[in-house]
Amino acid sequence: MAHDAELYPADRIVRAQKAAAAAGLDALLVSPGPDLRYLTGYQALPLERLTCLVAPAGGEPFLVVPLLEQPAAEASPAGALDLEIVGWHETEDPYRLIGERIGGSARRVGVDNHMWAEKVLALRDALPGVEQALAGEVLGALRMRKSAAEIEALRAAGAAIDAVHAAVGDWLRPGRTEREVGRDIADAILAAGHETVDFVIVASGPNGASPHHELSDRVIRAGEPVVVDIGGTMPSGYCSDSTRDYCVGEAPADYLRAFGVLLAAQTAQCESIRPGITAERVDAVGREIIAEAGYGEQFIHRTGHGIGLETHEEPYIVAGSARPLEPGMAFSVEPGIYLPGLYGARIEDIAVCTGTGGERLNLTSRELRVL
Amino acid sequence: MAHDAELYPADRIVRAQKAAAAAGLDALLVSPGPDLRYLTGYQALPLERLTCLVAPAGGEPFLVVPLLEQPAAEASPAGALDLEIVGWHETEDPYRLIGERIGGSARRVGVDNHMWAEKVLALRDALPGVEQALAGEVLGALRMRKSAAEIEALRAAGAAIDAVHAAVGDWLRPGRTEREVGRDIADAILAAGHETVDFVIVASGPNGASPHHELSDRVIRAGEPVVVDIGGTMPSGYCSDSTRDYCVGEAPADYLRAFGVLLAAQTAQCESIRPGITAERVDAVGREIIAEAGYGEQFIHRTGHGIGLETHEEPYIVAGSARPLEPGMAFSVEPGIYLPGLYGARIEDIAVCTGTGGERLNLTSRELRVL
Repeated sequence: MAHDAELYPADRIVRAQKAAAAAGLDALLVSPGPDLRYLTGYQALPLERLTCLVAPAGGEPFLVVPLLEQPAAEASPAGALDLEIVGWHETEDPYRLIGERIGGSARRVGVDNHMWAEKVLALRDALPGVEQALAGEVLGALRMRKSAAEIEALRAAGAAIDAVHAAVGDWLRPGRTEREVGRDIADAILAAGHETVDFVIVASGPNGASPHHELSDRVIRAGEPVVVDIGGTMPSGYCSDSTRDYCVGEAPADYLRAFGVLLAAQTAQCESIRPGITAERVDAVGREIIAEAGYGEQFIHRTGHGIGLETHEEPYIVAGSARPLEPGMAFSVEPGIYLPGLYGARIEDIAVCTGTGGERLNLTSRELRVL
Repeated sequence: MAHDAELYPADRIVRAQKAAAAAGLDALLVSPGPDLRYLTGYQALPLERLTCLVAPAGGEPFLVVPLLEQPAAEASPAGALDLEIVGWHETEDPYRLIGERIGGSARRVGVDNHMWAEKVLALRDALPGVEQALAGEVLGALRMRKSAAEIEALRAAGAAIDAVHAAVGDWLRPGRTEREVGRDIADAILAAGHETVDFVIVASGPNGASPHHELSDRVIRAGEPVVVDIGGTMPSGYCSDSTRDYCVGEAPADYLRAFGVLLAAQTAQCESIRPGITAERVDAVGREIIAEAGYGEQFIHRTGHGIGLETHEEPYIVAGSARPLEPGMAFSVEPGIYLPGLYGARIEDIAVCTGTGGERLNLTSRELRVL
């Protein structure tokens, strides 16, 4: 996809600098990853050589790049920004360069949350006496409130993963292994328009009781529930993530009971979304339904995670988070019930808080799909 | 691929603990990534929830995992090690847990080089007064000296990427875009046995002058040199990386001259490999040939990088590194000549230092392939 100026507007560095100043940070230091892409549109690879956006709260931002990445940086959307690009040669020390430029004035800097330790500690040494905090305090708050263009990108990602779920019945058959089914799904994730496959969970029978089981050589048998949790990243940079439950043949009665409870809980949670409701309340809405039915101990994780340029980002929908939802926040709603040794079930939609309520971005049926 | 006990032997944590003690580190803290896989065989995803191997220099190691990852951790090769697995619940603080366990005794700890800043700073706060250093000092030295099983895994990766290069002529044709060719190559990387496609560079004409150009919608034209630099990760965890140069139709005479110089340089560098030669000397062997021919300013990067569980790791073959090569070290030899606005050329093999010399793991012809 060509760079979309609506999706990656040019004013983001300035907005981040203002937010940094308000948060008492003298500069933001942002290495390759979703924060850098959010701020500049530049999709740089995380490598051992330092690439780092330096955005002083009160000064001109600049992008430090290895000399051999400079053409790529200049050809990227970052090259079109009002942003000095500073190339460093293989035998130079880029940390020292940053230290010389901002060491005199900065007292407290924010490093991006995913910056590698080797960069964090090298910056610590190059900026003696400067306190390091997380840029996520500032950037998470910006990224969490999505623009209409970003929601549209998430909607397209949702439609793409829905197309894959709609076809899972073609591949899921008794006698095939999880891995064989997973391979077909991975191909379909790309064919549906994703640029990368981020995860493919096909968890059959007892494997379903491990929420993050991925794929195994286990042969799927008739009558076994199967959790299919899949996602990828679109060329826009935005991610998809949706979970549906399948059964090849007739499902066990006790599973059907648990699944019914889960569906009621997930539906109630999606319907609870509106501006002002807290993240912990959305979590509780489902947890109460599941607990009342006797499965409270079997819902062993939070309800969801924000989604955007990362599959997992703010806001987290979790007990203890009193964060009120706001229009533009996008996150998963994915309660689960896990019965060790038997099976598990999880239903997951990406939802967006709108001005008046919530909108689900995954629209395949949430009912158990009996194949 | 099933877990290979020869490739991932069970004594690595103990060896790392001993090396940590010798380096003055009281503990190693290792989050998901290549270091964790090297030490435990556990291929955990890097997520916001903390997973961390804690290996005190003089105590029992333990693996801290989110409760919902615990079944996956136990089912992984880590579950077969003599290693306590400590699950933490969604509303617990795993950093505090680590602080309570080792905060009393540790004075200096090593965090893995790729640990995310948010984890580094949370550990800093949970271990007040404890100095943070890089675990890479210790783990890089272990990982750099590869076992026979690891070299065999790299040899298999080399054969897989060679099979792709052998077929590039089927896809590279005038009138196609770099992206179209790149898509075919990516499919072939998987078909050749890789588990993931790590990078696909198809840099035609002037794009070849940017060493890390990836893919664009540029249409490849007859008579244009094309740099194809590709790699992936095998199910074993080990990576491939090889660059070859192609030309659709007759190449320009000045390009052919530069390419001849480059081939002589790369060949001389590969032949220079033997135990005891320094990394900077291998770099210089090629740089001198290229400089003598008048292209010194156009060879703008180091000669190579180590390779193993990461595409880029120690040892780096770079000016200023007096590190003597040892048997078992594996690295790329990839000089390049870049003429901005015109074209570029790079030839890359993975090579291993043996007991007596060097072995190339990429065996397709290094000559320019005219299609």
